[in-house]
Amino acid sequence: MKPLVSIIMGSTSDLPLMQQAAKVLDEFGIPYEINALSAHRTPELVAKLARGASDRGIKVFIAGAGGAAHLPGVVAAFTPCPVIGVPVKSSNSIDGWDSLLSIAQMPSGVPVATVAVDGAKNAGILAAQIIASGDTAMLEKVKAFKESMKEKVIRANEGLKEKA
Amino acid sequence: MKPLVSIIMGSTSDLPLMQQAAKVLDEFGIPYEINALSAHRTPELVAKLARGASDRGIKVFIAGAGGAAHLPGVVAAFTPCPVIGVPVKSSNSIDGWDSLLSIAQMPSGVPVATVAVDGAKNAGILAAQIIASGDTAMLEKVKAFKESMKEKVIRANEGLKEKA
Amino acid sequence: MKPLVSIIMGSTSDLPLMQQAAKVLDEFGIPYEINALSAHRTPELVAKLARGASDRGIKVFIAGAGGAAHLPGVVAAFTPCPVIGVPVKSSNSIDGWDSLLSIAQMPSGVPVATVAVDGAKNAGILAAQIIASGDTAMLEKVKAFKESMKEKVIRANEGLKEKA
Amino acid sequence: MKPLVSIIMGSTSDLPLMQQAAKVLDEFGIPYEINALSAHRTPELVAKLARGASDRGIKVFIAGAGGAAHLPGVVAAFTPCPVIGVPVKSSNSIDGWDSLLSIAQMPSGVPVATVAVDGAKNAGILAAQIIASGDTAMLEKVKAFKESMKEKVIRANEGLKEKA
Amino acid sequence: MKPLVSIIMGSTSDLPLMQQAAKVLDEFGIPYEINALSAHRTPELVAKLARGASDRGIKVFIAGAGGAAHLPGVVAAFTPCPVIGVPVKSSNSIDGWDSLLSIAQMPSGVPVATVAVDGAKNAGILAAQIIASGDTAMLEKVKAFKESMKEKVIRANEGLKEKA
Amino acid sequence: MKPLVSIIMGSTSDLPLMQQAAKVLDEFGIPYEINALSAHRTPELVAKLARGASDRGIKVFIAGAGGAAHLPGVVAAFTPCPVIGVPVKSSNSIDGWDSLLSIAQMPSGVPVATVAVDGAKNAGILAAQIIASGDTAMLEKVKAFKESMKEKVIRANEGLKEKA
Amino acid sequence: MKPLVSIIMGSTSDLPLMQQAAKVLDEFGIPYEINALSAHRTPELVAKLARGASDRGIKVFIAGAGGAAHLPGVVAAFTPCPVIGVPVKSSNSIDGWDSLLSIAQMPSGVPVATVAVDGAKNAGILAAQIIASGDTAMLEKVKAFKESMKEKVIRANEGLKEKA
Amino acid sequence: MKPLVSIIMGSTSDLPLMQQAAKVLDEFGIPYEINALSAHRTPELVAKLARGASDRGIKVFIAGAGGAAHLPGVVAAFTPCPVIGVPVKSSNSIDGWDSLLSIAQMPSGVPVATVAVDGAKNAGILAAQIIASGDTAMLEKVKAFKESMKEKVIRANEGLKEKA
Repeated sequence: MKPLVSIIMGSTSDLPLMQQAAKVLDEFGIPYEINALSAHRTPELVAKLARGASDRGIKVFIAGAGGAAHLPGVVAAFTPCPVIGVPVKSSNSIDGWDSLLSIAQMPSGVPVATVAVDGAKNAGILAAQIIASGDTAMLEKVKAFKESMKEKVIRANEGLKEKA
Repeated sequence: MKPLVSIIMGSTSDLPLMQQAAKVLDEFGIPYEINALSAHRTPELVAKLARGASDRGIKVFIAGAGGAAHLPGVVAAFTPCPVIGVPVKSSNSIDGWDSLLSIAQMPSGVPVATVAVDGAKNAGILAAQIIASGDTAMLEKVKAFKESMKEKVIRANEGLKEKA
Repeated sequence: MKPLVSIIMGSTSDLPLMQQAAKVLDEFGIPYEINALSAHRTPELVAKLARGASDRGIKVFIAGAGGAAHLPGVVAAFTPCPVIGVPVKSSNSIDGWDSLLSIAQMPSGVPVATVAVDGAKNAGILAAQIIASGDTAMLEKVKAFKESMKEKVIRANEGLKEKA
Repeated sequence: MKPLVSIIMGSTSDLPLMQQAAKVLDEFGIPYEINALSAHRTPELVAKLARGASDRGIKVFIAGAGGAAHLPGVVAAFTPCPVIGVPVKSSNSIDGWDSLLSIAQMPSGVPVATVAVDGAKNAGILAAQIIASGDTAMLEKVKAFKESMKEKVIRANEGLKEKA
Repeated sequence: MKPLVSIIMGSTSDLPLMQQAAKVLDEFGIPYEINALSAHRTPELVAKLARGASDRGIKVFIAGAGGAAHLPGVVAAFTPCPVIGVPVKSSNSIDGWDSLLSIAQMPSGVPVATVAVDGAKNAGILAAQIIASGDTAMLEKVKAFKESMKEKVIRANEGLKEKA
Repeated sequence: MKPLVSIIMGSTSDLPLMQQAAKVLDEFGIPYEINALSAHRTPELVAKLARGASDRGIKVFIAGAGGAAHLPGVVAAFTPCPVIGVPVKSSNSIDGWDSLLSIAQMPSGVPVATVAVDGAKNAGILAAQIIASGDTAMLEKVKAFKESMKEKVIRANEGLKEKA
Repeated sequence: MKPLVSIIMGSTSDLPLMQQAAKVLDEFGIPYEINALSAHRTPELVAKLARGASDRGIKVFIAGAGGAAHLPGVVAAFTPCPVIGVPVKSSNSIDGWDSLLSIAQMPSGVPVATVAVDGAKNAGILAAQIIASGDTAMLEKVKAFKESMKEKVIRANEGLKEKA
Repeated sequence: MKPLVSIIMGSTSDLPLMQQAAKVLDEFGIPYEINALSAHRTPELVAKLARGASDRGIKVFIAGAGGAAHLPGVVAAFTPCPVIGVPVKSSNSIDGWDSLLSIAQMPSGVPVATVAVDGAKNAGILAAQIIASGDTAMLEKVKAFKESMKEKVIRANEGLKEKA
C-alpha cells in the first residue's frame, strides 16, 4: 500500500523514540514510510523527499529532531502537507528546551504542528486525526481509540480504589 | 456555508490576535465559526461545543489561550478532530512560556498541534493544510499560497538589494 | 466516615507521590477519597466528580498532574471548593517547569492553590490547614504538628552538633 | 467587625496590586486587615503579626511579595493558618520567575498556597473559598460568584458573535 | 570588488540590525553582498546562494534570524565556509531564547559560529578576524581596531573620573 | 576559641555539602560554629541565633538552603554581619534555579552575598576574604591560598602536556 | 582619604546604576574610587587595577557588568579582596539571566559575592557590612542603618493603614 | 610543525570533552597545542598565552569552559585571532545554561564564536573551516568531510529502511 504518512528523523539514534509513532500508525492501519535524514548533513535529500511527497500521495509528515531541531521546519519549507514536529530530548539537547523552541517557534507562513517533547506517540495519533478529517472510516477509528483510552483509565482507577 | 473550522479563544481579549487566523481562513475560502469561551469559567459550554463539533461537520479546531492555557487541551479531550493550539502571550503570561508549555506538553493520547507563541496566522494556515489533506482543490490553494509567499520574499529582497 | 478531601491524580503512575498527601491526611485523621482520572482522557468523569463534590461534603480537593497539568484547573472549573494543585515532575515533564506553570498560572476567577513541584506532602498539610480554618479541634492538631516539626529540627541539630 | 483575612505585602509599592485582593474580599463581605511589612527589614513585626493572628480570629493570610519573595513563607512559619502567596512581578523581579519560585517551592512541612504571578484577585477568591469550607453562607456566595462569571463570559461571547 | 562576506537575513525586517554587520565590514574595507531570503519561504534560493558561494569567492557567511532561527544552520548545510549566526530578538521571539538556542545548538558535523543575541556588530568583527586568519594586512587592521577600542575606553574612563 | 563564622543550613541533609565550607575554614584556621535550623520550621531559633551573633563575636554567616531558600535572607534580616548564601541543588529543587533566585534576588536594604549553586567551598573562601579585610595575617593566608591554587593549575597543565 | 572600596563597571553606560552603590558608601562615610574599564577591551588595565588594590588599601571591590558579565570574576582573579558582583540588566542582556549566571556561577577557588540583578544599592550596603566586620564604628553604623530602615517601613505601614 | 590552533580549557577535567576537538584537528592534519589553564586561578598565564599567540603563528583558538565560563572571552580580550568557545556542561553547571550564556553573550567589540553545549567536535570542524578560508587545500578537505558525512547518513538510512 502506498504510504500516507512520511516519518523522518534527524538521526538513526532517534529511531527508538520515533518507532512509537510508527506503532500508532500500524494500530490505525495507516501505511507509512520511514527515513533518517539530516537537515544539515543531507539537505538535498531532505528537500527531495519533502518536495515530491504530496504528489506521491503523502498526506502528513512526522518529523523528529533534537537540539537545534531544524528538520521539521525544513520539511515544511518544501511541502504543502501538514508537518507534525516531535522535539527530541536527545543527549545533546538542553533538557528538550532547544528542541521544543526550534520546532514550535516557526515564522509566519510556515507552521509546524508541534507536539510535546518526546511526544512521538502523540504525533502518530495526531497524524491519524488529520487523515480522519478527510476519511470517515478513520474518524470512527479515532473515536474508538478515544473510547478505549477512557475505558483503560476507568479500569485503572477501579484497580487503584480496590488497593487503596 | 457550514463551518469547517471552529475557532475558540479563552477570552474576548484574545480576539485581535485570533482574528489573524480567521483572516487566513477567509483567504482560503474556508468557512468557520468563532467563540470566546473559557475552559475554567464555562467548562460545560466548551465541552458541549467540542463534543458535538465533529458531527456538525467541523474538521479542525483552532484554540488560543494564555497563561495556564488549558483551553486547547480541554477541547482536544472532547473531540476526535485535530486541535491546533495557539499559545497567547497575554498580559498575565510569563512572556509566553506558560502558554507554550501548557499547550505543547499534552499527555500521551491527547495531542494538541501547537504553533508558535502568538502564531494565530500560522494556525490558520495549518488548518488549511489539514483540510487540504483530504481536499485536492484546497491542496492547490496551499501550493499557490506557498508560491506567492516565495514571490513576496524575492521581490522584497530585490528591493533591499536596490537600496543597499 | 464521609470523605472531606478528594485526592485526584492524572494517572495511576502518580500514585506513589500522591500517597504522601493521603498519609498526611491519615495522620490528621481526615477522611478522604482517592481517584486517578485524566482531565484529557476522561473529562466527563472528572467533571462529574468535581461538580457533585461540595454537595457530598467534600471541603478541599488535592489534584496532582504532570506536563501540561490541566487536572487541578479543570477540577477548579467545576467546584466551589478550594483546589490544591501538586505539580508532578513526571518522566514526560521538562523538569517540572511545565507542570508548575500549567497549575499556578490560572486565569482570573478560578484560582488553584499551588504547592511545590512534587509537594504532595505539603498539599496534605495545606488541606488540613484549610479544614482547620473552620474546625477548632483540627486547628489544635495543626499547631501540634508545627510544634512537633520544630522539636524534630532541634533534636537533629543537637545530633549534628555532637557529631561535629 | 473582626478581620478574618490578613493581607500583607512586602512594600507599599505592592499596594495597587494587593488592593485587588481587598476588593474581592469586600465583594464577598469578608472583613480584613491590611499591612505592608517587610520580612527582611521588619522581621520581628512580621513574626508578631503572624504569631498572634490565629488567636485574633484570622482564618487566612494573603501575602504578596516580589523578587526573593520570602514574606509568604516567613508568615507561614509563624501561623497555623493557610497562607496564600501572591508572586509580584515588580520592577526588581526577573519577569516574575524569582517571585514565583521563592513562593511556590516551599520545603516540606510549611506549604504556601501559591497563585499566579500578579494573581492578587485570585488570592481574594481563594481566601473566600477557604472560608467557605467552614461557612455554608459563604459557600453559596462562592457558587453565585462562579455562576455570575459564567454569565459574563456567555454575554461577552454573544457580543463577539454579533460583531463577527 | 568581489564580495568576501555574504550577509543573509531571514526577513527585511532584520535589516536595521544586520546593517550593523555591514557597517563594520565597510570599516574594515571588506566587500560583501547582502540578501534577505527566508529558509522556510524560499528554501531553494537559500540553498542556491549557499551552495555556490565558496566558488564565487565568499569566505564567510553572516546569517541572522529570529524565533525558530534555522537560516544560519540551513546555510551551513550547503557551504564549506564558516557561518556566523546572529540570533535576532525580533517581535515574534521569546526574548531571544528561541533564536539563540536554534542557532547555537547545531548537531555534530555542522557548526554555526554563534554570537550574542542581536550581536550583528560582533558578527562583522568576527568575520574580519576570520578573514584575517589568512590575510596579514587584515590582521593588522584587527589589531588596530582592538587598540582603538582600548583607547576609547580609557578616554571614557578619564571623563568619568573627572565628573565623579 | 570563639567562633568567627556561623555556618547554618536549612536541614541536616545539607551537611555533606556545607562541610566543604567548614573544611576551608579549618584550613584557614578560622573558628566556626555549625547549625542546621530551618527558617520555616524553627523561625524563632534562627532569629535568636542571628540576632545575638554579632555580639558573640561572629563576623560572617554562611547560610545554605535549597528550593524556596529563605534561610540566608532570614538570617540577614536579623544581623548586621555579612551573610554568604549558598544555593543548594537538593532533590526538591528545580535544578538549583529556585535556590539561586531565592537567595540572590534580595530586596533593597538587605543583601545576601550569593555564591554559585552548591558553592559551599567558595563560601568558605569568601568568608576568609571578608575576615581578611580587617586582619592582615589572614590576608597573607588568602594570598598564599591563591598562589597555591595557581601552582596546582600549572602542575596539572604540565601533566596534561606530557600526556598529550 | 584613601579609598577603601573600588567600584568598577564594564562601561560608562552602567554609571547611573553603579552610582547607587557610591551613594550608599557616601552615606556610610566610606571613601571609594570609581572606574569604568572593560574586562574584554582593556584587560591589562583591569588586571593592573585589581592586582595592586590590596596594597593600596582597598578592602572590597564592587564590580558591575551585563551580558556575559566577566568583569567581577576577572577582578577576583587578581585580588585577595572580596569582590561584590552586580549583574546589570542592560539592553544587550537577556533580562538579566546572562549577567546573573556569569557572575554567580564562579568556579571553585575564586568566589564572587553576587547581589541581585541591578542590586547596586545592596552592593554598597554589603561593602559596608564587610568593612564593618573589622571596624566597630562601622558596625554601629550598619546597625543604625538597619534600625532606620525598620522605622521607615513602620511609618509607611502606618500611612497605608490610615489611607485604607 | 608549528601549531595553527591553540586549544585551551579551564580545567583538566574538561580534557575528555576537549580531546574531541583535538581528534578532529588530527583528522584534518592541523597541528595544535593544548593547555588547561584557568582564567580565574592563573589569569597571567592565560593572558601571556593569548597575547603572544598570533605572533607564534596561531590562527584560531578553541576555548572550553563551564559554569561562569569566562575563559573564551578572556582569551578573546588578548588576541586578534578568532576564538571558538565551547560551553561545557560540567557538574557545577546549571545544565549548560550558565556556560552557554557566559560564552555567547559577549559585549560589543569582542566576539566569541560559540558552538553548542559540549560541542567540542564542532569546534574542531569550525577551526578547520576558518583555516580553510585562507587555504585552498584545507577547503578541499572540508568539502570532502562534508561529502563523507552525507554518505554516512545515506548508508545509515539504507540500513534503517532494511530493518524497518
